[in-house]
Amino acid sequence: MLITPGPLLATINTPDDLRKLDKSRLFQLADELRQFIIDDVSVFGGHFGASLGVVELTVALHYVFNTPDDKLIWDVGHQAYGHKILTGRREKFHTNRFYKGLSGFPKRKESEYDAFGVGHSSTSISAALGMAVASQLQGNHERHHIAVIGDGAMTAGEAFEGMNHAGATDSNLLIVLNDNCISIDPNVGALREYLTDITTSQTYNKVKEEVWNLLGKMSKFGKSAQEIVSKVESSIKSSLLDQSNLFESLNLRYFGPIDGHDIDHLTSVLDDLKKIPGPKLLHVLTVKGKGYAPAEKDQTKWHAPGLFDKVTGVIQKKVYDTPQPPKYQDVFGNTLVELAEQNPLIVGVTPAMPSGSSMNIMMKVMPKRAFDVGIAEQHAVTFSAGMAAQGEIVFCNIYSTFMQRAYDQVIHDVCIQELPVIFCLDRAGFAGADGPTHHGAYDIAFMRCIPNMIVAAPMNEQELRNMMYTAQSEKVQQGKHAFTIRYPRGEGVMPNWKTPFEAQEIGKGRLVSEGEEVAILTIGHIGNYAVDAVTMLAKEGIQPAHYDMRYVKPLDEALLHQIFSRFDKVLTVEDGCLMGGFGSAVLEFMANHGYMARVKRLGIPDAVVEHGEQIQLHNECGFDPQGIANAVRELIFTGRTVVI
Amino acid sequence: MLITPGPLLATINTPDDLRKLDKSRLFQLADELRQFIIDDVSVFGGHFGASLGVVELTVALHYVFNTPDDKLIWDVGHQAYGHKILTGRREKFHTNRFYKGLSGFPKRKESEYDAFGVGHSSTSISAALGMAVASQLQGNHERHHIAVIGDGAMTAGEAFEGMNHAGATDSNLLIVLNDNCISIDPNVGALREYLTDITTSQTYNKVKEEVWNLLGKMSKFGKSAQEIVSKVESSIKSSLLDQSNLFESLNLRYFGPIDGHDIDHLTSVLDDLKKIPGPKLLHVLTVKGKGYAPAEKDQTKWHAPGLFDKVTGVIQKKVYDTPQPPKYQDVFGNTLVELAEQNPLIVGVTPAMPSGSSMNIMMKVMPKRAFDVGIAEQHAVTFSAGMAAQGEIVFCNIYSTFMQRAYDQVIHDVCIQELPVIFCLDRAGFAGADGPTHHGAYDIAFMRCIPNMIVAAPMNEQELRNMMYTAQSEKVQQGKHAFTIRYPRGEGVMPNWKTPFEAQEIGKGRLVSEGEEVAILTIGHIGNYAVDAVTMLAKEGIQPAHYDMRYVKPLDEALLHQIFSRFDKVLTVEDGCLMGGFGSAVLEFMANHGYMARVKRLGIPDAVVEHGEQIQLHNECGFDPQGIANAVRELIFTGRTVVI
Repeated sequence: MLITPGPLLATINTPDDLRKLDKSRLFQLADELRQFIIDDVSVFGGHFGASLGVVELTVALHYVFNTPDDKLIWDVGHQAYGHKILTGRREKFHTNRFYKGLSGFPKRKESEYDAFGVGHSSTSISAALGMAVASQLQGNHERHHIAVIGDGAMTAGEAFEGMNHAGATDSNLLIVLNDNCISIDPNVGALREYLTDITTSQTYNKVKEEVWNLLGKMSKFGKSAQEIVSKVESSIKSSLLDQSNLFESLNLRYFGPIDGHDIDHLTSVLDDLKKIPGPKLLHVLTVKGKGYAPAEKDQTKWHAPGLFDKVTGVIQKKVYDTPQPPKYQDVFGNTLVELAEQNPLIVGVTPAMPSGSSMNIMMKVMPKRAFDVGIAEQHAVTFSAGMAAQGEIVFCNIYSTFMQRAYDQVIHDVCIQELPVIFCLDRAGFAGADGPTHHGAYDIAFMRCIPNMIVAAPMNEQELRNMMYTAQSEKVQQGKHAFTIRYPRGEGVMPNWKTPFEAQEIGKGRLVSEGEEVAILTIGHIGNYAVDAVTMLAKEGIQPAHYDMRYVKPLDEALLHQIFSRFDKVLTVEDGCLMGGFGSAVLEFMANHGYMARVKRLGIPDAVVEHGEQIQLHNECGFDPQGIANAVRELIFTGRTVVI
Repeated sequence: MLITPGPLLATINTPDDLRKLDKSRLFQLADELRQFIIDDVSVFGGHFGASLGVVELTVALHYVFNTPDDKLIWDVGHQAYGHKILTGRREKFHTNRFYKGLSGFPKRKESEYDAFGVGHSSTSISAALGMAVASQLQGNHERHHIAVIGDGAMTAGEAFEGMNHAGATDSNLLIVLNDNCISIDPNVGALREYLTDITTSQTYNKVKEEVWNLLGKMSKFGKSAQEIVSKVESSIKSSLLDQSNLFESLNLRYFGPIDGHDIDHLTSVLDDLKKIPGPKLLHVLTVKGKGYAPAEKDQTKWHAPGLFDKVTGVIQKKVYDTPQPPKYQDVFGNTLVELAEQNPLIVGVTPAMPSGSSMNIMMKVMPKRAFDVGIAEQHAVTFSAGMAAQGEIVFCNIYSTFMQRAYDQVIHDVCIQELPVIFCLDRAGFAGADGPTHHGAYDIAFMRCIPNMIVAAPMNEQELRNMMYTAQSEKVQQGKHAFTIRYPRGEGVMPNWKTPFEAQEIGKGRLVSEGEEVAILTIGHIGNYAVDAVTMLAKEGIQPAHYDMRYVKPLDEALLHQIFSRFDKVLTVEDGCLMGGFGSAVLEFMANHGYMARVKRLGIPDAVVEHGEQIQLHNECGFDPQGIANAVRELIFTGRTVVI
């Protein structure tokens, strides 16, 4: 089913069409664009609130700026649905986030209008500045470079680093601060309070314009630019003028705040800002979910609501006859509270993912012991290390893909110091529809090479509970190891998951099913695919042994000695990159101990795997149940032939 | 030779001794402490200017605060020599930075006064906040938590993330901004300009104190605290009072700037600040190298000058009769300019390491095309990606250990987008005296697992030149791969290194010396040790073959097929972690192609290797020339015995 656009939207195939419209028609266009997004997402799913909030801004930016020659970068990018629909992708938009379909984020390969691929937050200022500087070097002083960044993304260190550099340049950069008070969960931190102060307190804004002038900073703009500055400012609510504020401290000329849903005002302000050279920031106030009442009301729920009835606002929920397995994240969230109730030293840390990690459960019942530190993974890890240094038992939950942001801190602040911080990496393996920017593909490789680090992955809910229980035990906390537990997005396999805690022996795997000829070694949830593969193979009279190794590091060497003494054909399976991953760890064990065996490794290949449902991607990479069964057959029937 | 302390310093064995002194004697103590540092570093070497600049601050902090119960965290930590000398390590201080001696940085294992290990910059606020929050949770509301952070370190994103969180808490945190305008090279960026404005412009500071009061933020301090605030402020130069500034935007009460060499004023201000609860920032102005005229004059040169004559200020230089090989960093720096002269699209990026990377050579001759972006690795990489997206050819030079800070950006902004950014990782392998915080131990493992990434390491100067030449060639730049070149700290092996450029075939290794029985596969500069080992072994009639593989990724598969067809004993040698490194890549090749051979891998073990000279550490890890020779002997004489 395709979505029918409104009559005006139907005529807009590129921003060139848009720019031919009379300004008076933009209101209608924004209206139709909003309706198109509602119509589409209600039946095809996707991110919702963020794109609704920037409908007017999207129309205004493409109307005023000469995209794609002017460079427009949408931070994070799930706010870019309107942008995609206006830039030639309306008719394909129903494929958004589906396997082989449009990406849910801007993507350079997909369109020349997507100036920079995004997904993780807070990269847009740095990227836009790089482009602006390149334009200058190439002698193009007319091109505009626009970064649209949310107030949540602004709290990440990289945004600050970008502003610090930008403010020392004369680059043609416009930062649009899209201030809607919320990322996925409501934003936190001092910057958030500050923006609220700017927006609400008239007193706060009565600080001196003269500062800017007296410092001579206006002089670089030239006289005509100064006149435009005055014009823009007089069009903005007067009490909010004349600020010497945080952004101006960083030498970014600040304009705003203005109403991001007033398309008339937006276009005229943007039009004026085009004429002011140098780095500048426009503060725009928007409402996430704007124009769709239920989404305005519960913004976290409607960030990416799934399918819904657009008339009633009722979100579809699957109904099951039997109890279903929980999401791993909920096992984490509930287990954390259980453990914290038993031990007052336990605390939780999340960088802006309370609902995504289910740490909101702990935040609700123990608000003083669960910390949402904002989009700030680096800080999250060092802050955790600081607490651990004082004897707290810290569960720091970071999506696998976002842990890439805090890699140095894990090495430098946690592991070198032998601090027993517990890292729970959600969304390990393929993220699914979010695609390559969000896949947790590399964590096994990049975490296991760090000394003083334990790396574990549960095959089911019970194992996750017991790993968490083990990680916070006195024995582990008195030791010198950090403890990483990685688990995937989505559901586990145990409807009755709330089993009594049982301490695991660190680095011990287990036999799942006995067999012969081939040993399948799996790590984590993906082991359930091996169970399915064993069932399939049984029908053919093939019975490989299956071991759930549980720990990538330390490996269960005793078990591996048994396995390599018995088997000369071994299959490793992991939901992570093959280069340097779990299978490689097994190869290292073999080399260290002089074992010779035919080893086949299944996992994520050395390529950028695009978006799709997890099972589609597992299939593509050859480690779905059928792929595992095929690999076993290949090991048995191809034997040990040396391929040269 | 031990250094003789002055008479007062000789009586200070712990800060408790210091705190018993009358305040009037602190001036003398600071003087003796400064002299002790000068005496020591002139004959034993080490970091110099930073610690001289904080002598008074160090004495004042330990005098006012109750260390070690109060937690004192020195950002980066090479400013902490005075701290070490005052906290029980004076008599061992001559072992500073020597193998098995004191660490050049604060280190938890070394002393209870080292509250948090540091080395990389900008972690102190996050760590101190973690401790402050832990103290609150544990019911200790009296303990003070102090982070001393430089203005350079303040530009890194993590510091901002920490402030953003701190400002939203009521934690007992004091941030001391040690503002000396310089890290190793002079600091850059908008924040630096801003701090200069604060310090120099009276006009700039005439902004409103009332803002703070009107917002009611003072109320949380209570009345007595308010009085103290007034007292502190009236003791500070009046025109600099009353600021609504960047830090106050983040809800940190700002005090300063004050003279960091006026120990009387420092102690009284710190004493007052102790009584003001909540997060606050004291801006202290210091001079790097203070009290030693040559160091004040050329601060970059005297950051870590090597040995020198303390009377004349002449820095010792080794004199050689014959031409010596250059440092790899200088090969990089000079080659970059040669290439950039031939191609106007080439640009350079360094995060605050112009002299450390030798990018200062390009900055001097092509200032518009070489960018020092400040301590901001994340931004450096995304900024590079932005420029590459616009067709610039970017050489982004980041120390291997600091690249850990930008790991996500390499994956997310460069490799997923297929942007051909060239990363030059200096100080790959052991950093030497800087120790574990600075070792470039993990880069092979963490870079090779990223798709669209080439990873190379030169065995000598000529290879470095040719790799750089190859990376910027049209063929590579038109492709979709980023290009990493890793090389070590220190000198290469070719006095006549400036050879004509020659394009390499990507992923091609080379035979260094022919042989039999054992094949030694090396990557990078460490291959020269294998050359030495081969020479040693020749005397015993053992002649292994030696291959310089040049590329970790892509591996030279054709060459490996030849090698594994001929040899069943293979030794891999790398100056990087064994887990997931180059040797593991060779094992993966074997498994993929069904080869069976006895493979021994030499490299950095799964442990935190401490500081020392590079050769000492190579020896400790068993991959110095003798270690390589031993491994060859072992392979030959032990054969293929399976060890169980």
